Amino acid sequence: MAKNYVRLDKDNAAVLLVDHQTGLLSLVRDIDPDKFKNNVLALAAAAKYFNLPTILTTSFEQGPNGPLVPELKEMFPDAPYIARPGQINAWDNEDFVKAVKATGKKQLIIAGVVTEVCVAFPTLSALAEDFDVFVITDASGTFNHLTRDSAWDRMSSAGAQLMTWFGAACELHRDWRNDVEGLGALFGNHIPDYRNLINSYNQNNNQ
Amino acid sequence: MAKNYVRLDKDNAAVLLVDHQTGLLSLVRDIDPDKFKNNVLALAAAAKYFNLPTILTTSFEQGPNGPLVPELKEMFPDAPYIARPGQINAWDNEDFVKAVKATGKKQLIIAGVVTEVCVAFPTLSALAEDFDVFVITDASGTFNHLTRDSAWDRMSSAGAQLMTWFGAACELHRDWRNDVEGLGALFGNHIPDYRNLINSYNQNNNQ
Amino acid sequence: MAKNYVRLDKDNAAVLLVDHQTGLLSLVRDIDPDKFKNNVLALAAAAKYFNLPTILTTSFEQGPNGPLVPELKEMFPDAPYIARPGQINAWDNEDFVKAVKATGKKQLIIAGVVTEVCVAFPTLSALAEDFDVFVITDASGTFNHLTRDSAWDRMSSAGAQLMTWFGAACELHRDWRNDVEGLGALFGNHIPDYRNLINSYNQNNNQ
Amino acid sequence: MAKNYVRLDKDNAAVLLVDHQTGLLSLVRDIDPDKFKNNVLALAAAAKYFNLPTILTTSFEQGPNGPLVPELKEMFPDAPYIARPGQINAWDNEDFVKAVKATGKKQLIIAGVVTEVCVAFPTLSALAEDFDVFVITDASGTFNHLTRDSAWDRMSSAGAQLMTWFGAACELHRDWRNDVEGLGALFGNHIPDYRNLINSYNQNNNQ
Amino acid sequence: MAKNYVRLDKDNAAVLLVDHQTGLLSLVRDIDPDKFKNNVLALAAAAKYFNLPTILTTSFEQGPNGPLVPELKEMFPDAPYIARPGQINAWDNEDFVKAVKATGKKQLIIAGVVTEVCVAFPTLSALAEDFDVFVITDASGTFNHLTRDSAWDRMSSAGAQLMTWFGAACELHRDWRNDVEGLGALFGNHIPDYRNLINSYNQNNNQ
Amino acid sequence: MAKNYVRLDKDNAAVLLVDHQTGLLSLVRDIDPDKFKNNVLALAAAAKYFNLPTILTTSFEQGPNGPLVPELKEMFPDAPYIARPGQINAWDNEDFVKAVKATGKKQLIIAGVVTEVCVAFPTLSALAEDFDVFVITDASGTFNHLTRDSAWDRMSSAGAQLMTWFGAACELHRDWRNDVEGLGALFGNHIPDYRNLINSYNQNNNQ
Amino acid sequence: MAKNYVRLDKDNAAVLLVDHQTGLLSLVRDIDPDKFKNNVLALAAAAKYFNLPTILTTSFEQGPNGPLVPELKEMFPDAPYIARPGQINAWDNEDFVKAVKATGKKQLIIAGVVTEVCVAFPTLSALAEDFDVFVITDASGTFNHLTRDSAWDRMSSAGAQLMTWFGAACELHRDWRNDVEGLGALFGNHIPDYRNLINSYNQNNNQ
Amino acid sequence: MAKNYVRLDKDNAAVLLVDHQTGLLSLVRDIDPDKFKNNVLALAAAAKYFNLPTILTTSFEQGPNGPLVPELKEMFPDAPYIARPGQINAWDNEDFVKAVKATGKKQLIIAGVVTEVCVAFPTLSALAEDFDVFVITDASGTFNHLTRDSAWDRMSSAGAQLMTWFGAACELHRDWRNDVEGLGALFGNHIPDYRNLINSYNQNNNQ
Repeated sequence: MAKNYVRLDKDNAAVLLVDHQTGLLSLVRDIDPDKFKNNVLALAAAAKYFNLPTILTTSFEQGPNGPLVPELKEMFPDAPYIARPGQINAWDNEDFVKAVKATGKKQLIIAGVVTEVCVAFPTLSALAEDFDVFVITDASGTFNHLTRDSAWDRMSSAGAQLMTWFGAACELHRDWRNDVEGLGALFGNHIPDYRNLINSYNQNNNQ
Repeated sequence: MAKNYVRLDKDNAAVLLVDHQTGLLSLVRDIDPDKFKNNVLALAAAAKYFNLPTILTTSFEQGPNGPLVPELKEMFPDAPYIARPGQINAWDNEDFVKAVKATGKKQLIIAGVVTEVCVAFPTLSALAEDFDVFVITDASGTFNHLTRDSAWDRMSSAGAQLMTWFGAACELHRDWRNDVEGLGALFGNHIPDYRNLINSYNQNNNQ
Repeated sequence: MAKNYVRLDKDNAAVLLVDHQTGLLSLVRDIDPDKFKNNVLALAAAAKYFNLPTILTTSFEQGPNGPLVPELKEMFPDAPYIARPGQINAWDNEDFVKAVKATGKKQLIIAGVVTEVCVAFPTLSALAEDFDVFVITDASGTFNHLTRDSAWDRMSSAGAQLMTWFGAACELHRDWRNDVEGLGALFGNHIPDYRNLINSYNQNNNQ
Repeated sequence: MAKNYVRLDKDNAAVLLVDHQTGLLSLVRDIDPDKFKNNVLALAAAAKYFNLPTILTTSFEQGPNGPLVPELKEMFPDAPYIARPGQINAWDNEDFVKAVKATGKKQLIIAGVVTEVCVAFPTLSALAEDFDVFVITDASGTFNHLTRDSAWDRMSSAGAQLMTWFGAACELHRDWRNDVEGLGALFGNHIPDYRNLINSYNQNNNQ
Repeated sequence: MAKNYVRLDKDNAAVLLVDHQTGLLSLVRDIDPDKFKNNVLALAAAAKYFNLPTILTTSFEQGPNGPLVPELKEMFPDAPYIARPGQINAWDNEDFVKAVKATGKKQLIIAGVVTEVCVAFPTLSALAEDFDVFVITDASGTFNHLTRDSAWDRMSSAGAQLMTWFGAACELHRDWRNDVEGLGALFGNHIPDYRNLINSYNQNNNQ
Repeated sequence: MAKNYVRLDKDNAAVLLVDHQTGLLSLVRDIDPDKFKNNVLALAAAAKYFNLPTILTTSFEQGPNGPLVPELKEMFPDAPYIARPGQINAWDNEDFVKAVKATGKKQLIIAGVVTEVCVAFPTLSALAEDFDVFVITDASGTFNHLTRDSAWDRMSSAGAQLMTWFGAACELHRDWRNDVEGLGALFGNHIPDYRNLINSYNQNNNQ
Repeated sequence: MAKNYVRLDKDNAAVLLVDHQTGLLSLVRDIDPDKFKNNVLALAAAAKYFNLPTILTTSFEQGPNGPLVPELKEMFPDAPYIARPGQINAWDNEDFVKAVKATGKKQLIIAGVVTEVCVAFPTLSALAEDFDVFVITDASGTFNHLTRDSAWDRMSSAGAQLMTWFGAACELHRDWRNDVEGLGALFGNHIPDYRNLINSYNQNNNQ
Repeated sequence: MAKNYVRLDKDNAAVLLVDHQTGLLSLVRDIDPDKFKNNVLALAAAAKYFNLPTILTTSFEQGPNGPLVPELKEMFPDAPYIARPGQINAWDNEDFVKAVKATGKKQLIIAGVVTEVCVAFPTLSALAEDFDVFVITDASGTFNHLTRDSAWDRMSSAGAQLMTWFGAACELHRDWRNDVEGLGALFGNHIPDYRNLINSYNQNNNQ
């Protein structure tokens, strides 16, 4: 019984960044802050690089949850930005769902804070409406490993695919020859080990 | 093939707290005692906050297993309280099942000690009778990680959904606007990081 | 869609102890030796306590793999003992399968060393012949966590249920009133924390 | 060569709580938030219980560092409270040192956030002025284990003694008979396992 | 409902080694380098030992990714070697797929670097074409545990079987009597603990 | 500058077992219960084997702390047994110190629960009276690693030597030829891996 | 006996960055790459911020060790740069020692790759010449924790002080009032949690 | 107060390999077997490379402890080989001490199994006779981390220096120019990451 390979396609994918807010980030303890910041910015950079429609949303940003991290706002000045007045599940917000559907894309790449709420709820809602959902696990954070494992199990059981930003970028790009420089820059900026490889390589080739 | 989103609904959910007894708690070593105590009390507080019918049950509380932790007894003075005379699986106790069915709810939120027995057994029994079961993993404890992982796998394979108290509370609440104060208090009382956010926010806004 | 609860039944279960040999045990590094020894002996004690038909098998016991641990041999002097001449999967040995089928039981409780081979192979074979298989994960050991996780995933995906010795004993016993003393002794002998609870309780009640 | 035992003495000890502020607490990642909150409050409760002179100090509490956690303020309404205008090492603040010296105590019990700065700097300064310094390691938090280990090594090499709140309370109390109830309450309030022991004991004795 | 046991068969299996390149290996941090090197060479040695058709492929080996590790090249001098000009998913390379299909085997044993890309992508593609895929998890490496767990979940959900090199070798061999010496040598060369068992055994038997 | 080797000497050593009580043991979470029980019994067995004067003491054994674990009482029926009426530091109890000094030994081997109190306090007191103190770290337990590390640092800085039961037994025995059987039995009973080595060896030699 | 507090002084400190080369960085596995890169750049930024004389050195940079990471070269275009022709201990290179002594500073802040060699050797050499050495542990990396712990023990025993970049920056700055903006920027750029605090604070204060 | 740098000197160092026997190796669980085997062989290779006098010794090699690992015997066919008839501390064996003193070296490099006995005992004895002792921590193994930490603390407190094989090799070599090829080969054979760097470098330079 062959299984269909549901493969990310840059012409059919949109990115949803949910509640990466300065206050909520202090709750994230399943990933180290340096690494988490890097992962979120790497996903955002990939979204830009592949020109994927991107939607930003926040929850209660005037209160303790804090504002969206400024870097994201700056990277997507023209993206739909839905500051939800109260809905915890972004999918309960009509503007958000409208913005998602306006992209016309069937594949949703989701990341957010915290995983079991801000990511899992819209993931489950979107799956129920027949979207393909790709959760970017390393750009989604929560309180601890127990919580993360529970959330992953719930989302995976419901049909979501768990990926990381690097895997998603590779699947979207398909072939290095589409743009060696661009993809190399994306990786060099966000993977210190890869940058080191490039720098070692360049020195050797310039001798 | 769209997957139905089985979503917690405060009008259709009951809470089952199974065997949180002072002796049995000394067996719990997959979660730190400070955190575990907090998680159990947070789940109980959420049950109260959302007015969910709640059922308490214990196993052999006159013996080494010890009495129910007093805080739970105090929080639910009027809840059905089934001191099981011997049945290990609470679902084998008729009074317990009757109490569950008397709530008229289809969604069962379960937590207990120890996970692979006191939680898993009634979970599997309830699933077999077509209930939707939501296991609160961080308010359920057991001997070690190996045991926990085995129990989770068995319950998840049988159709249970793994959640934590915070995720359950958020899914039950749906929208902050239903009661900002109340939910904020629940979180502030049980999530130190969230309390800090609130306190920082309040100071800034009172300057 | 209700899920049937495949529940251990002491009248319908047999125990298969596969390759707990003195040499092979030195390969086990995913569980500490003190704990692993205790788990294996606890499972054996439970098998005896519930009078479950038990089958012992070894692989190449005259060579480096070493003899069966003597404690197991002593506990089950009359059990079928299949020293396999070469088959790695015990299910490839006709005598072994005959012995299993001779028990007339439909539920197989399996543990062994190493998990991904001596446990997983007969597990997958037995599932293919429509047995219900319960893998006792904490009485099965292997090289490291990566290997264990892979083996669990393979067995669980094929329909095996992952349990630990304590969960299995509880599910087999059903009700403390069937024999409080006996079950208490089993737990007291193999769970130091439970023994402490009993000893504290006894002192208090003898004051 | 006998070593003098520098032993905490409740008549000769003062407590310094340094920079437990709501913002800075979000930096603490070497101890889980539930446990850390409990440890800090337990140390404070011990300070009150033994009537030790206690000094509170904060750094820049009007800015991002946030206010002192309100619980501490409430527990010590009359304690010297030094809101430092800029000095990172509390010992560089004259009012703080004056307050310390005004206690007339030779033994200083210190805890704070973050360990390698707010705790280590005044510790090293106090040791240089011949105080005996007892660092309460579990009520002091910082970014990660690497940082903690470095800070401990520096303080220990300089002569500080590393203790936890429970050890300090025991050393201060000396003999349960000085007040069984009081010490039991302190432990019961802050050690869930100990509370369970008491509750099990009480039930058994009230049968 | 019996589950078919999809069992490795040495007459029906091919091995795909994907992108074990000297540069890419510096990205692998979920397995220690000593162990990972050993696992990869053990899998290669098993492939040779069982005479399984083996296919090598690399990505951009003239650039920072670096050349294939020389040991693999030397072990399989005549194997199809596909230096992909740009395709990230090896299955997107026609020569690679042709080479796979030319083996006439239905079972594919895959390992590579990094797991979520170089392993997962061809795994999902091959499953979609009805191959049985066995991922050798301990000869596949990636950035960290979070990434690995995500990749395993995605592949397992799609129907891949997760195995390690030792389990695969055992399942391929079936019976020690097919060649005791050969299998013993394979294990002795790549499992230090097993080599120790053999050496202890030999000494005792030569006394 | 040569350092004197302060070496355990079976003619000059006494063993102090402090507060291994059934209630207090539930507080121990830095060592797994199976392993910890084994370590304590192994140390006791070594004390008996080497005929070292051994002193037992407990704190408040009629209350929640619970009675001494019965195994220890049974192993040392004639040992001085000091049930302390309230002193937390055993060295503050005159009978205890008298019993220690009555042994006439200069080297004290100490273990107990919890490490930073029941072990550290008498250790520091004994060092101050010029005893050589050997803390058996693996037969001493406490709340968590942070607490253990702090306690070890304090004791080591004061001059205590940190050893484990196995190291102590080896240093006391000096030469296998003093009694091969006896030491082998001690190790075989308490080190599963060593028992396996013996059993493998015996089989090979009996072929 | 008071201990002198050897305190970092920005007028008396120099920074030595040893062998942060693109090839050698692939050997560092005791700190995650994202975090390590950040720590090294943070130390460098602190060195610049406090105008500390800084010396760069590399080992064999034309070979496999690779070039100095370009960011460091760019940050310190005018710093002494000693490309050592072969000496493993930088202190064995006369130019390096001359450069160090030319700074006229008595306090040396050292970091490098790998810890037990490139950091430990010059640390021990400098201590032997009476310098005060402050090892920046989180900007120094090596193969694994075992190696790190050994190296730290050797350096600490020889008198080196173990600090992290944040602690060093705080000790150098002394008082926030010397420059609130500058220090805040340094922290905001290299501590994501601190940046979040600042951003939350700013939003609240701009409402 | 300057500290003398006790620096390894290849003209003044001898290597002692204590009890690396096939049976005892199964007790080592603080280091993974693949890595431990590599570390021991790397140390041996370094001893050969620097022509350091090397002494082998075993304990009871005809019994369960098993023979010396054959690789070591083969690497040092002419080294003094002391099969101790019973002494646990090798330094209690006159032949061993004679062999050590016959080397005329003042610096002893020690490794063995298990750390707290076979390494620590001769280390403490040698320190007492004024040797400089360098313990190679990564070529010495034992039961678990707790035991290792205790043993390291005891040896370090007595004046031993903790090093790893790589650090020792670097300190012995002093300057790459003494033999670039030789040292590179030693590292390439025992550090997979370093071998990868070399292979990447070579490819680039051969293009």
